[in-house]
Amino acid sequence: MPDRPDRPDRPAILLDLDGTLTDSVYQHALAWRKALELGGIQLSVWRIHRRIGMSGGLLAESLARETGHELTDKEAAKMKQVHARLFAAQMGDVRLLPGAKELMRHLTKLKVPWAVATSGALASARPLLELIALPPSIPLITRDDVQHAKPDPDLWLAAAARLGVAPESAVAVGDSVWDLLAARRARALGVGLLTGGYGQEELERAGAYRVYEDPADLLLHIDELGIRAS
Amino acid sequence: MPDRPDRPDRPAILLDLDGTLTDSVYQHALAWRKALELGGIQLSVWRIHRRIGMSGGLLAESLARETGHELTDKEAAKMKQVHARLFAAQMGDVRLLPGAKELMRHLTKLKVPWAVATSGALASARPLLELIALPPSIPLITRDDVQHAKPDPDLWLAAAARLGVAPESAVAVGDSVWDLLAARRARALGVGLLTGGYGQEELERAGAYRVYEDPADLLLHIDELGIRAS
Repeated sequence: MPDRPDRPDRPAILLDLDGTLTDSVYQHALAWRKALELGGIQLSVWRIHRRIGMSGGLLAESLARETGHELTDKEAAKMKQVHARLFAAQMGDVRLLPGAKELMRHLTKLKVPWAVATSGALASARPLLELIALPPSIPLITRDDVQHAKPDPDLWLAAAARLGVAPESAVAVGDSVWDLLAARRARALGVGLLTGGYGQEELERAGAYRVYEDPADLLLHIDELGIRAS
Repeated sequence: MPDRPDRPDRPAILLDLDGTLTDSVYQHALAWRKALELGGIQLSVWRIHRRIGMSGGLLAESLARETGHELTDKEAAKMKQVHARLFAAQMGDVRLLPGAKELMRHLTKLKVPWAVATSGALASARPLLELIALPPSIPLITRDDVQHAKPDPDLWLAAAARLGVAPESAVAVGDSVWDLLAARRARALGVGLLTGGYGQEELERAGAYRVYEDPADLLLHIDELGIRAS
């Protein structure tokens, strides 16, 4: 069978950061609740939870729309700032997810091209990047590098481009519905993790090719993604 | 058609407290994460989140089992104590859920028998009870009143008994899978709310007769539960 150079048999892996490598989704949800309230928007935490993984701007906008509260650009910027401060105050309680380090090491060891793509801005992602100890050789795409965050495909597309692979041959791993919708729009294979607090059915309905519990569980089943040791 | 005295056409309503009337599930999840970690158990927040609504003892035990960490009674008691302290420290950020007050008022106005049943101990539920301003005439069942909390049916059964109604004619409203499993075991009709952060499919799969967003949405559709104004 002839090789298809655009479909290598060892796909590239694109990893989301928040909730996929670090256990930070719930702290984000509570920080947003308070930031929104301080900005005059009273919202239940579950509604916010279900938007984590979108860009902060889109999240604030979509939640404001839901409450019929029009946000000025200045208000939205202020809210993002307050959220970042409240989240940073909880960083001491944020941990790596089980298997995150081992997964990253395994990919590097197997010479699988991999990258990290986050909806967060570099400034707010920095403490998380320290936590995961991202090797300097690994491409990192943040909110600052693209015009639109998830559910737009830009972050996954930029990550694939930085690795020099076609998005169609990449596996995009995330913990939220937005990661998976963005993966479909990028024509990458989406893999969901339960670590974001979504149920398996929700992730599958958003197009997940496979759903794993956490990075450790993904690593245990990595052959299902076509990644072989030899 | 003859009346069936054991099936009145206006069912009694049994309401869970945490996550059903108050927006407190996410604070509980983070308080448990830290309490477990201080007790030597490292667990991702989503795994804890999916156990909120169980009794604290059962939660600590089931999570300890998952990590293979045997808990002594003393350790479990200590962990529950630490969780209660960490949760209390966040009470200032806990809000009533939309429609909670209006739903309680509506039931009282319509003379629908209703009660509150919580997996929490009275001591830890007290600040939440102040938040919802439970009328003194409304029966309250806490963890202290029963041998087993949810998913055992005891809490719902005790609440129905206090109202003098058969569990089969009661509607049990909760936000977690445990509330709904307990409702089935009590032979009550289970109603799920999305406020706990579970997806609709998960609640339906656990036996929900109907799923609403929050107390406000339930109130909007209360006719679906057979509760009429006249």
